[in-house]
Amino acid sequence: MKVTLIKDLYRNTESFIDQKVQVSGWIRTIRDSKAFGFIELNDGSFFKSVQIVFDDKLENFKEIAKLPISSSIKVEGDFIYTPQAKQPFEIRATNIVIEGTSNVDYPLQKKRHTFEYLRTIAHLRPRTNTFSAVFRVRSIASYAIHKFFQDQGFVYVHSPIITGSDTEGAGEMFRVTTLDLNNLPKDENGNVDNSKDFFGRDTNLTVSGQLSAEAFALAFRNVYTFGPTFRAENSNTARHAAEFWMIEPEVAFAELPDIMDLAEKMVKYVISYVLEHAPEEMNFFNNFIEKGLLDRLNNALNAEFGRVTYTEAIELLQKSGEKFTYPVEWGADLQTEHERYLCEKVFKKPVFVTDYPKEIKAFYMRLNDDNKTVAATDLLVPGIGELVGGSQREEREEVLADKIKELGMNEADYWWYLELRKYGGTKHSGFGVGFERLIMYLTGMTNIRDVIPFPRTPGNAEF
Amino acid sequence: MKVTLIKDLYRNTESFIDQKVQVSGWIRTIRDSKAFGFIELNDGSFFKSVQIVFDDKLENFKEIAKLPISSSIKVEGDFIYTPQAKQPFEIRATNIVIEGTSNVDYPLQKKRHTFEYLRTIAHLRPRTNTFSAVFRVRSIASYAIHKFFQDQGFVYVHSPIITGSDTEGAGEMFRVTTLDLNNLPKDENGNVDNSKDFFGRDTNLTVSGQLSAEAFALAFRNVYTFGPTFRAENSNTARHAAEFWMIEPEVAFAELPDIMDLAEKMVKYVISYVLEHAPEEMNFFNNFIEKGLLDRLNNALNAEFGRVTYTEAIELLQKSGEKFTYPVEWGADLQTEHERYLCEKVFKKPVFVTDYPKEIKAFYMRLNDDNKTVAATDLLVPGIGELVGGSQREEREEVLADKIKELGMNEADYWWYLELRKYGGTKHSGFGVGFERLIMYLTGMTNIRDVIPFPRTPGNAEF
Repeated sequence: MKVTLIKDLYRNTESFIDQKVQVSGWIRTIRDSKAFGFIELNDGSFFKSVQIVFDDKLENFKEIAKLPISSSIKVEGDFIYTPQAKQPFEIRATNIVIEGTSNVDYPLQKKRHTFEYLRTIAHLRPRTNTFSAVFRVRSIASYAIHKFFQDQGFVYVHSPIITGSDTEGAGEMFRVTTLDLNNLPKDENGNVDNSKDFFGRDTNLTVSGQLSAEAFALAFRNVYTFGPTFRAENSNTARHAAEFWMIEPEVAFAELPDIMDLAEKMVKYVISYVLEHAPEEMNFFNNFIEKGLLDRLNNALNAEFGRVTYTEAIELLQKSGEKFTYPVEWGADLQTEHERYLCEKVFKKPVFVTDYPKEIKAFYMRLNDDNKTVAATDLLVPGIGELVGGSQREEREEVLADKIKELGMNEADYWWYLELRKYGGTKHSGFGVGFERLIMYLTGMTNIRDVIPFPRTPGNAEF
Repeated sequence: MKVTLIKDLYRNTESFIDQKVQVSGWIRTIRDSKAFGFIELNDGSFFKSVQIVFDDKLENFKEIAKLPISSSIKVEGDFIYTPQAKQPFEIRATNIVIEGTSNVDYPLQKKRHTFEYLRTIAHLRPRTNTFSAVFRVRSIASYAIHKFFQDQGFVYVHSPIITGSDTEGAGEMFRVTTLDLNNLPKDENGNVDNSKDFFGRDTNLTVSGQLSAEAFALAFRNVYTFGPTFRAENSNTARHAAEFWMIEPEVAFAELPDIMDLAEKMVKYVISYVLEHAPEEMNFFNNFIEKGLLDRLNNALNAEFGRVTYTEAIELLQKSGEKFTYPVEWGADLQTEHERYLCEKVFKKPVFVTDYPKEIKAFYMRLNDDNKTVAATDLLVPGIGELVGGSQREEREEVLADKIKELGMNEADYWWYLELRKYGGTKHSGFGVGFERLIMYLTGMTNIRDVIPFPRTPGNAEF
């Protein structure tokens, strides 16, 4: 008999009425009295479980009744439709085969566990309701991102992970090496001889795929990356991880407002897609993780995102009368408290801030005609702060070359990036989205460690 | 006026007849005589270009006529339907705006360039026909992979890139570190003190996401990874790169034949999807890269993949009378020459070889009842050799623990992997596909450096 997924039982319930079915999965709960018992069986295909009723007509009744939770079994039985009951259907078992027995010291016994504790058993936590919901939504949101861009003809670019360049011209990076640290080759000055390393030079883990994406945008017009990026910052906060995924679309012939439109469309698309494809999980988050989550998401979905310049935003914050920990003054970067105040209290919806002072933004952002600001934007969203950061790129070869010199960056490292301007340099713009922040925004989860399968943070590379 | 993509002009030609259109893109070729000229304009949205006709009614006619190729322009004009001509339509320009001028030393002048040379200008090569086709197919095939698995409810898992464990128990790995190599902290014995490193231990770049995927399969049943993996092998061949992408599905309650079915379905799905969504590119490959490519792919599509045990395969090779460079004997691994002979000469289609000697396969593969072989499979395909490698996983805790001990691996590193067996260990199976090999199989490209945007190989981490 063919195995049926529990998802299908829920999605096509009526087609199973009075049918024989076979399911397999893991025991979430089990209870029994003398002659019969109940099993809540989850098969991983669906957020909800199915109730199995079994009785002592089964020859292995006693063995089944004693199974520790998380044991896996295969069940044949009759699908019983129970529209009046709490559970819309159940399976009356006619045969149960034990696939794998668990143990009584199984760590996920039926009680509340803290997220901190569950991080220490990251190999088992996807079996809990919360993490089952988080990681299914993560998967569905990933696919929504791909679908959004592919449906519009964007080309997906696998930008390199190991790199010799430092995109942002700042930020701590991880060194990648095959040198034997206990026996390093040295040059004549006694320094490490990087030319002996695997790539004949020193290399690092990428902090962004943007520069690569730009090269491809000037060939394919519309491209995006979606891959892992790295920061070796020693910051132990709920918002930072050493390894995280980024989405970086890049669009030729696009100016700043064009990619703001694109970002708004993308965020709304992912919200809709997840609400449609993971309704059970999203209701769970709304009930147990963040009351009001669905209102917050629907509000974003139905709003036209706000747009305000950095200069106007500074004025709004200064006039607000609000006491902030960090000072508000033109020229200083916005802190999370400012960002959240703007979108949560002033606009009450996601808002794009544009045209930041050039000093606080990256070298590749296009200088505005005022010579003071750059064509950059951050999208601020309630509950999170910055979700998207983008800009129009400096396409003028000389302006870019001057900037690289001015900042004391190594011009030779950027020969090919400058050549993109030399040979048909075209207006182009793009943005980056921290995928984990997007998942936190979608689920209400508040610690980045709880939206990554096996998180990497200072002092932690377990599993 | 709204900008139209050239892709739309080709896909919905009739809706543009006698319309005014606006396009923007890069000049591929340009030629002019006294009073008029022709531009082949590519906008990156489509493999083909569109012909722009311009004449001296344009006030900037002379300036346009002198533009170096790869300059970018914006064109307004009349869409002229020419069904009898070689090109089905053209645009008669009424206005041309120069977006970005290129230079006469543009390296991609209209002549043949070797792939070797084009690797040195990897930032520009996607503008050539070959690499435009390769990287668009790479993008489309990526999406086909996601769609294939998501449509069946598989959960996409982002397995970690930085890891403390070595999945295969073999293979050179890249060290990831934030230690200052010129000033390393030492322990009391004079060795590098790894506890001072970012993660409080030594860490490496992952060689496979499989172990993580197994943890998730035992929660979600059907999962897959699709991400970068790394090998620090100093092999300068056309088939090896230090950084490449892998797809690793993992299925709970599945035995070996189940995942062979899945692999066959997946390969066929990706072939069909690419043939349907990139017909121009696939015809280009068939005409200019590998004559007979489409026949080879259609043959795979229509065949039932062969299935043969390793033991039978050895017999077939021994009886073949063929002279091989490497000896054929039971117990030795199959070499590419053997693999290609089997699928190209014996079966004339893709073939699964199963049940390999345990000594030549990884520790996690399930021991067969003969105690000599493991439930492993490789899918061999014409032109490539091994495309997919999979196995049923050893779900028996004790058998697995014994194997880890026998191989002298560090048991402590595998505590959580063993716990997956302790707590409801369930039959499960999975496979891995080297994504670049799949792209080579789909396109006929023969060097892995030519199917990766910015390849990383020994001595090379440029761009």
